[in-house]
Amino acid sequence: MIDEVKTAKQIIDEMVAEFFGITERMGALHAAKSFQKNKREEYPMTNFPDAKQLFTTVTEDGKSILSIEPYAVPEPKKHEVVVQMEAVPINPSDLGLLTAAANMSTVRSETVDGNPALVADVDPVMQPFFKGRAGKKLAAGNEGAGTVVAAGSSDAAQALMGKVVTIVGGEMYRTHRVMPAMMCVPLPEGAPAKEGASLFVNPMTVQGFLNTMRAEGHEALVHTAAASNLGQMLAKLCLKEGVPLVAIVRSDAQKKILTDIGLTHVIDSSKSDFMEQLIAALAETGATLGFDAIGGGKMASYILTAMEKAAAVRGAEFSVYGSTVNKQVYIYGRLDTGETILGGGLGLYWGVGGWLLTPHLEKAGGERMMEMRMYTVEERNGIFHSDYSSEISLMDMIDPDIAKGYEKKATGEKVLVNPSL
Amino acid sequence: MIDEVKTAKQIIDEMVAEFFGITERMGALHAAKSFQKNKREEYPMTNFPDAKQLFTTVTEDGKSILSIEPYAVPEPKKHEVVVQMEAVPINPSDLGLLTAAANMSTVRSETVDGNPALVADVDPVMQPFFKGRAGKKLAAGNEGAGTVVAAGSSDAAQALMGKVVTIVGGEMYRTHRVMPAMMCVPLPEGAPAKEGASLFVNPMTVQGFLNTMRAEGHEALVHTAAASNLGQMLAKLCLKEGVPLVAIVRSDAQKKILTDIGLTHVIDSSKSDFMEQLIAALAETGATLGFDAIGGGKMASYILTAMEKAAAVRGAEFSVYGSTVNKQVYIYGRLDTGETILGGGLGLYWGVGGWLLTPHLEKAGGERMMEMRMYTVEERNGIFHSDYSSEISLMDMIDPDIAKGYEKKATGEKVLVNPSL
Repeated sequence: MIDEVKTAKQIIDEMVAEFFGITERMGALHAAKSFQKNKREEYPMTNFPDAKQLFTTVTEDGKSILSIEPYAVPEPKKHEVVVQMEAVPINPSDLGLLTAAANMSTVRSETVDGNPALVADVDPVMQPFFKGRAGKKLAAGNEGAGTVVAAGSSDAAQALMGKVVTIVGGEMYRTHRVMPAMMCVPLPEGAPAKEGASLFVNPMTVQGFLNTMRAEGHEALVHTAAASNLGQMLAKLCLKEGVPLVAIVRSDAQKKILTDIGLTHVIDSSKSDFMEQLIAALAETGATLGFDAIGGGKMASYILTAMEKAAAVRGAEFSVYGSTVNKQVYIYGRLDTGETILGGGLGLYWGVGGWLLTPHLEKAGGERMMEMRMYTVEERNGIFHSDYSSEISLMDMIDPDIAKGYEKKATGEKVLVNPSL
Repeated sequence: MIDEVKTAKQIIDEMVAEFFGITERMGALHAAKSFQKNKREEYPMTNFPDAKQLFTTVTEDGKSILSIEPYAVPEPKKHEVVVQMEAVPINPSDLGLLTAAANMSTVRSETVDGNPALVADVDPVMQPFFKGRAGKKLAAGNEGAGTVVAAGSSDAAQALMGKVVTIVGGEMYRTHRVMPAMMCVPLPEGAPAKEGASLFVNPMTVQGFLNTMRAEGHEALVHTAAASNLGQMLAKLCLKEGVPLVAIVRSDAQKKILTDIGLTHVIDSSKSDFMEQLIAALAETGATLGFDAIGGGKMASYILTAMEKAAAVRGAEFSVYGSTVNKQVYIYGRLDTGETILGGGLGLYWGVGGWLLTPHLEKAGGERMMEMRMYTVEERNGIFHSDYSSEISLMDMIDPDIAKGYEKKATGEKVLVNPSL
């Protein structure tokens, strides 16, 4: 009995370790390593003769290639299942692997090594940045959902047969993905795969923002690029949990998206009274923690400066080092890849830094992570609902016109891939 | 018995609370409040008819005044002692209260309200920054040492009679300072007050750097403006504790100060091969935490960039977000008050923020703090030894020529005030 318990614990530990190993590689340049690792002994199954997968390659001679190639689906091990992929989103974080190297004005259809492909030139100035992956075929796709069509012999794996599951771990732009059963979260009976497609990256990130807020002793949030899919989720989550949120957007249309959801403090950074409005909203909410998707330029500095002025409005203590209120902005995205410029008058009670989901989850631990995932499934049609502007096939991903569309990262435009189409 | 224990605990709690109240006000613009608070019922003692104190005032009409005035020393309460001050340093952090408002080219001797004073004009552009203290007489002086010449009735207070003690808490530029006995750390028999003058601000700060390093999982340090009095203490402490330190200086003379102490990795930022040398030193030491006294400009960014390149040399994992090595720089001083500019290529595994002693000690707790203070006394002639370029009297502090000298903050120049001269 004790042995059995031990074994179960070991399995969980291995699964968690594998999970972190996989998410670590989410969008990793060195996914090459994972690719090598996944080249384990193959058990080619004749069950899936038409299985296909997408590869992304930056060649030594300066080409960016997305190719669709046959996939020999390995036989699942005891604790594994085979998921037929039916819904895989294209996230901004996926584009780093898919198209970051490509000069998109040069995309064209070609046949590469007998496989259909989308080829683009890599600007010579960009080539050095992709040295680490040069010549290596990489799989891509952070998260997705599909139906379990084959399973290993364990009870846990068998129990998932026929179920629609939501999964994460890279290499999702495939017709079939082999996964540890432990890492598949089943959707309720009858729910379509589409509802489970985007239940990891954005939903876990916004929950992570609130974890961080609580762990670091803040009581309200500021968010930039706040009308994004992720921003809308954060708005709904904050409304539900009673966390005051100050949302920064760049247009009237974006503002309307968030006020329609029910948000009160939506500030437009393109208006001339931006700072006044921001200070007033921060004074009212007491937000001292910001999450910034922009990164470059002065936005983080504007937020910290406004927090400082809001602290004065709220009657905070001041020293020669500024207010003694701890003010923090985390940069979690790089819509602007330029320098981050922080004003000199911030005092010494502030911090700016990067925020990433993977190390956050490692710190939160496996148990809290499973809790968060369960919540994403529960709220898949509520807080964590995603809208898609179009649904495309694996072959569509290498269509020049369609690729130009999904590469644009426009607010509110999110493309869903159905590899089984 | 339980009541007695409780009372003792309450006393300690009150002392610690008072301590944090006082250090919170170290150099505080709003020290005005402390000044009001200290205007408690006065028990004028005829024992000290010549007692004097220094006040610093920024007037509503734009003058910066340092005045020497009579001081009615209050009678110590049960748990208090009266310390005759004999050694009070002028730290950069004291200058914020003493001379930050003054246009030093206009200093002159005057008599103000019948008291001898040093008067300077405040540049109109600076005046708004001192609005919070306008018209208020503030006491100054963060730390110091002297002899206990009167004591309250408690055993703890009586036990200190005649002892030389090191103290902290503001308002030190006085002939006499009333202190809670609990907050006085006695020097060993025979040690002169001078040895206890500077045992708080710099020694506690450098110990704080190592606390932070260990708490946040780093194993080596980078330090800028590293030949300062504080920098030399850090160098000695790191050598003693076996913590690799990369010291950044700006001249050959500064480099020699640190190599003479025994430091190996001393990098000169004025040399053309600065970045190469820095990367090599970071690669060798594995330092991923920096403490920066400069603040403005690109130094923090250079350090983070060099850490990133050093991580590559050390074979770290890389993702699209940069190396997965956590890199942090804390700004603890503002020799440059301009903008802090962070390069756009840092990835997302980094942080920059302010670091201050007071919140650090609050987090560390009263017990750890006392441990750290005991260590400063033990190492007062070793690691935490301070050199002084001159020793002056209270009256010297308001001499125009002498004031111009101590206001300069030159590396290696530290002035000691003996209020009992």
